[in-house]
Formats: sequence, structure tokens, C-alpha cells
Amino acid sequence: MAGYQTFTPEQAAIFANDHSELFGEHSQLSCQEFGDGNLNLVFRVKNQFGTSLIVKQALPYARCVGESWPLTLDRARIEAEVLLIHGKIVPDHTVEVLHYDAEQAAILLEDLGELQILRHALIAGKQLPLLAEHISSYLAQTSFYTSDFALDGPFKKARTSQFMNPELCLITEDLFFTDPYCNHERNQFDPALKPLATSLWFDEELKAEVAELKAKFESCPQALLHGDVHSGSIFVDKEHTKLIDGEFGFYGPIGFDLGCFIGNLLLNYCALPGLLTDETRLAQQQNYLREQLAATEQLFRQKFLALAARETKDLALQNEAYQRRFVQQVITDALGYAGTELIRRVIGLAHVADLEKITDKKRKQQCESKAVTLGRKLILQHRQLQSIETVLGWLQE
Amino acid sequence: MAGYQTFTPEQAAIFANDHSELFGEHSQLSCQEFGDGNLNLVFRVKNQFGTSLIVKQALPYARCVGESWPLTLDRARIEAEVLLIHGKIVPDHTVEVLHYDAEQAAILLEDLGELQILRHALIAGKQLPLLAEHISSYLAQTSFYTSDFALDGPFKKARTSQFMNPELCLITEDLFFTDPYCNHERNQFDPALKPLATSLWFDEELKAEVAELKAKFESCPQALLHGDVHSGSIFVDKEHTKLIDGEFGFYGPIGFDLGCFIGNLLLNYCALPGLLTDETRLAQQQNYLREQLAATEQLFRQKFLALAARETKDLALQNEAYQRRFVQQVITDALGYAGTELIRRVIGLAHVADLEKITDKKRKQQCESKAVTLGRKLILQHRQLQSIETVLGWLQE
Repeated sequence: MAGYQTFTPEQAAIFANDHSELFGEHSQLSCQEFGDGNLNLVFRVKNQFGTSLIVKQALPYARCVGESWPLTLDRARIEAEVLLIHGKIVPDHTVEVLHYDAEQAAILLEDLGELQILRHALIAGKQLPLLAEHISSYLAQTSFYTSDFALDGPFKKARTSQFMNPELCLITEDLFFTDPYCNHERNQFDPALKPLATSLWFDEELKAEVAELKAKFESCPQALLHGDVHSGSIFVDKEHTKLIDGEFGFYGPIGFDLGCFIGNLLLNYCALPGLLTDETRLAQQQNYLREQLAATEQLFRQKFLALAARETKDLALQNEAYQRRFVQQVITDALGYAGTELIRRVIGLAHVADLEKITDKKRKQQCESKAVTLGRKLILQHRQLQSIETVLGWLQE
Repeated sequence: MAGYQTFTPEQAAIFANDHSELFGEHSQLSCQEFGDGNLNLVFRVKNQFGTSLIVKQALPYARCVGESWPLTLDRARIEAEVLLIHGKIVPDHTVEVLHYDAEQAAILLEDLGELQILRHALIAGKQLPLLAEHISSYLAQTSFYTSDFALDGPFKKARTSQFMNPELCLITEDLFFTDPYCNHERNQFDPALKPLATSLWFDEELKAEVAELKAKFESCPQALLHGDVHSGSIFVDKEHTKLIDGEFGFYGPIGFDLGCFIGNLLLNYCALPGLLTDETRLAQQQNYLREQLAATEQLFRQKFLALAARETKDLALQNEAYQRRFVQQVITDALGYAGTELIRRVIGLAHVADLEKITDKKRKQQCESKAVTLGRKLILQHRQLQSIETVLGWLQE
């Protein structure tokens, strides 16, 4: 990319102004970079009247825990195109893309600053009553309308090629399915958890299930996934739920997105005893999470089946028994993937604030250990699980 | 393709001479077209000493039962590249590609004229003692070495894009999985079979299984398949087995290739009572086919597992229990796909000479009806089948 250069705040402001008419003629623009700077620059550009937009620019490398490796700028294209396709399907739950510039690997986005990141909300013990309702809509609709149910073979194959996304998929393949199950130098965990981690590395039964989940991640292009549905990719308030990011988007198994979301609620569930000291609030919040988990599965199943019954284009897939089996398999897959999310967030490279924020060291170890144990049980048993109800039962044991 | 023009025999001879040194300086070349002319021109070019080569040129359309539709010339590239990749893995069982010309959509190939097409050999009641041994090697090796077991994620994704092959996959998707299960105008069958055909169209349980097989065909890029392993794509003699064609090659479920091969042996099995009048010969030949079917499965399983144990590159897939489950699933899939091959060759557009050659009309109907009944049973039960041994039991009932 010959003309690429990282934006200064001034350049980001000009980029935003050039590609939107929101600011108007007499705007005085200010701009601040507020990303964590590891993978992307993120600027907020605003005028004196409070109108604001976000400029996100991909950096040509990933800086990560002392390690530095080049990372394709093409991920900005993937992010923009995934968000545009998903946004057309579910505009209410996808951040709006106003412009994408290939040369600068830069995207101009709606500012969701009035909303809060779901992870922060959950850590603070907030309850979002519409979370399951919205996420189930997002997942059911984006996956259905990009799948073989809705697209003809040649069109879907073109889309699959468009989102092959080999570099970012490789990151997921390594971090989710390989590293945590061997003594890999990228792993990061509390030394007190070493015996638990080691027990994973020698559990051949567990590793057989993880292999199956990895193979499915690599060879099951069912739908255009978001690819990174953790609770840091979701902006919320009481009435709104919007997905951001999308650079990990690719054609993969639908259960992966659903499973990451479930996994993130379960991570928060495991962390709660370290975050909330009041027993009553803790019980209420755990109750809220269980309700949302049950509703996510139930609503996803209902919505996907309703779409399949009404809008399946492929003649051969217009079969109710098949559609039920398909959704059941997606949910079963999701429970397995949720298990891998739980484990990799404790043993692997990338951790979550839900657990990291626990100040009591011993309590943190207990919560982390609980997450790993739950993850292992999910992975080992997922093929026999018909519903998350069973898992919610485990949580209350 | 600006410069494309269909070859005259003279042009084919020049093409062969230009791209091979086999003929030598003083060759007098002769050339004859002998393809069926529906999809491709096929020329044999030979010199006065008997040295010969094949020139295969794709036509820009498919003429098929009065219907005419344009068909991408890119299939010549796919064929050449599939044969080159497979040929590098199993040179003994793949026809040799000497040259590929993109502009003319033409391939220069080794002449296998001294061998016989497997379908003709089987119709004549011949026994090829090494058939299962060779086909199992071809299928196990080509699928293993092009799969996630052997290739890293980015390389395999590049290969998947290279062989997306949307147009020819669509033909398979329609002809295998859609047409025979509805009253489609492309279907062709003996009016006497109408009640049997109709019973398929209203069998929702059967159609649920076919939907699952179709979805897997569309969304399961496990390995670079040949894509058209019927007994007309295999050249044989007592010591040799070589695959030709490959224009249907794509990244798909490994069980599809294995299943097509099994399906073609079963089609021949069902046709034999109409082809061989001598009871003893009939029994011997059926016995031979059952042995080859059992050996194909057993040897495929052994060879794939041996490769997986020895050569799996992906750390996470180096798990014996997973590998066993993977191969078991391939075999289960194959038995389902074999069932779809049986049905589509009787009810669908493209029939097989094994059945078409039966002169006694009533006998032919009986054989065809048996093939459909067996196909249906395979499709309905394949998910419960662990091995073809059960199916061989059905054949002897």
C-alpha cells in the first residue's frame, strides 16, 4: 500500500470531514486518539456542537505483549465489508460504516460514545434487559441471510472467497484451539493454575473434542461470521445493542459466534463472586445472566427457524426436520466453542477484564479455576448437550 | 477468452507437438477427435511409431439432452490443476498432465488408450484384483495431503479459493441433491418407475437426510476432491488404475469422492442380474464386487489413519481419538453420498451404461428399482452406519 501512512489527529479529522456531511460548513473540528494502539488507531472527531464520528485505522503490525508481528492491512477491508453486509441485514444492531478507504486502511464510523461497552457494563453489575433479544436477532439474521439457506451456490462461494481472511483466522486457530492445550510460550496464566493447565495438556479426551471444534472452525463455511463476538465488541444501553469490529469476519460455523457470546457471559458469571461483594446483588446478577443465557439460546433457535421456514431459497433445504436438526447442531457447536472461550481467556494469551479486575488474588484464582473447569466440562460434553439449560443447572450445583 | 477457438484435428496435432518432445523430429502425426462432444473435444494425436498423446479442449457450452447452456472455460484450468496436484501426490493413479493452455482451454495429457474404462470393464464382467487397493490409495492420499491435517490454514485457504469452482459445483448440487427429490423437468426415468420416483418426492424423512448431505457438500471444504469419481473417470487394467478428468474438483467433504466410487460399484452390482445371464458368473461377479467394496472402506480407513498418525502437521489435530472419529465420519458420509449417486443415476438426468445396457426392459426396471431402493435405505440409515459391512449384508438378503 504505497500511499499508506498512519494518521495524525489532524489527518483523521480531515478524513472524517471529507467523507461525511454531518459536520457541516462552519464546523470547528477537534480530534483525539483513544485506542489502545495495539492493532489500530481509533480517533474521535467532533465539532463544537457535539456532533462526532469515529475514524479507525489499521496499523500494519500487531504489538502484543512484547512480541511484534506484521499484520495485513486488508483486515480494514474485511471489517468494513462485514459491517456493511451485517448492517444491511440488521441495521439496528450493527455500527454504521460511513466510508472505507483501502489505501489508508481507514474506516469512518458512527460514534457509539453514548453507549457503553457490554463488558464494562457487566463488570459494573448492570443488567441489560434486551441483551438476549438483540444478540439473538443479530446472530440469527446475519447467519441466516449469508448462509446456503438464503444464497445460491455461486454467490455464496464468491462471498466465501471475499472473506477468506487467512491471517486473522490463523490467530483464532492458534489462540483458541492450539495454545491453551499445550505448553505454549504464548500462554499466560497465574502460576498457581499450573497444575490445572498441565492437566489440560495431557487430557487426550478433551483434546479430541478441541480438535473437532478446530477442524469445524477451519472447514465449515456456513455463514459470514462476525468472528469476534466477545463482550468488548458490543456496545449497549438499556434499549440498544450494537456490534462493532468485524476484522475477524469470515465464513465459518455459526455456532462459533453464538458460542463466543455465551462464553463471555459465562466468563462474567464465573468472575462475579470476585467482583460483587454483596451476596444479594451477586445472586440477582447471576440470576440475570442465567436468564439471558437461556433466552439467547431459545430466541436464537426460534428466530433462525422462523427465517428458515419463511425464507429458505434452496429447494432441497426447505425441510423442517432438517432445519430443526441444523439449528440443534449450531447450539451444540456453540456450547463447545463457549468452552474453548472460557479456557483460552484464563490459560491463553488474551485475558478478560472481568477476571483481571478481581483484586483479591486468591478469589481471582478461584474464579479462574471455576472458568477452566466449566470450560472443560462444556467441551467434553457438548456433543451430548441439547440445550444450555443443562449448563445452567451445573452453574447452580 | 479473446483468442479461443475450437481446435481442428490439425490444430490439436500442432498443439500436442508444440508442447511435448515425445514425438521427435521425424514424426508424421495423425489426429482424430473421439470425445462425445457434449462438454469437450478429445483428440488422440499419434505418430507413425505408435507414440500417442491426448488433447482435451473445453467447449464454451454444455450440450445436454436438447438443452444448451454456457459453461465456463475455466474448468480446463481446474481440471489441469487438480490433476497436477493429485498427480504429484499419487503419480501412479493420476493421468499425467503435460501442458495446460489457458487461452485455448486445452490440456495435453498422457494417452491411457491401453487401459480400459472401469465402467466398460465391469459391464463386461471383468474383475480387477487391485481396484480397491489403488482407489483407496488415491482417495486417502489426495484427501489427506490437501486437508487441514497436512496444510497450514493460510495455504489451505488459498487452495480453497483456487478451486471454488462455482459453476460445476452447482451442476452437482442440482443433479445430485435437488432434482431427483422433486418433480423436476431435468429428471429422466422410465415411466414405469413413476410411482417409485413420486414416493421419493414426498418422503420428508428422506429429504431431511438429503438436505444434510447437500449442505455438507456446500459447506465442508475438508480436502481437494476429484469431484466426479464415477467408474467412467477411472482407467484400469489388471495392474493399473488411473483417474482422469477432474473438472469437478473443489474443496469438499472427503466422503463425497469415496461415496461416488462406492455408489458406482453398487450401481453395477444392481445392474449385474440384467447383464450376466449365467448364474454362476453372476454370483462370482457379485462376490467380487462385495469384496472390493469391503476392501475399499477398510483400506481407505487404514491408509488415512496411517498418514494421520505419521504426517499430521497441525498440533491440535495430532490426536488419535479425533483422527479415528474423523475417518469414521468420512465413511458414514460416504455411505450417504453413495445413496444419492444410486438414486440420481436412475431418476435424475445422467444415467449409467451399466443399467442402460440391459436389453430386457422388465429386467432393467427391476434393476433400477433395486438401485433406488438401496439408495434410499443408504441415505435414510447412513448416520447410523459404522461400516459398509452392514450394507453388504443387505445385498445378500
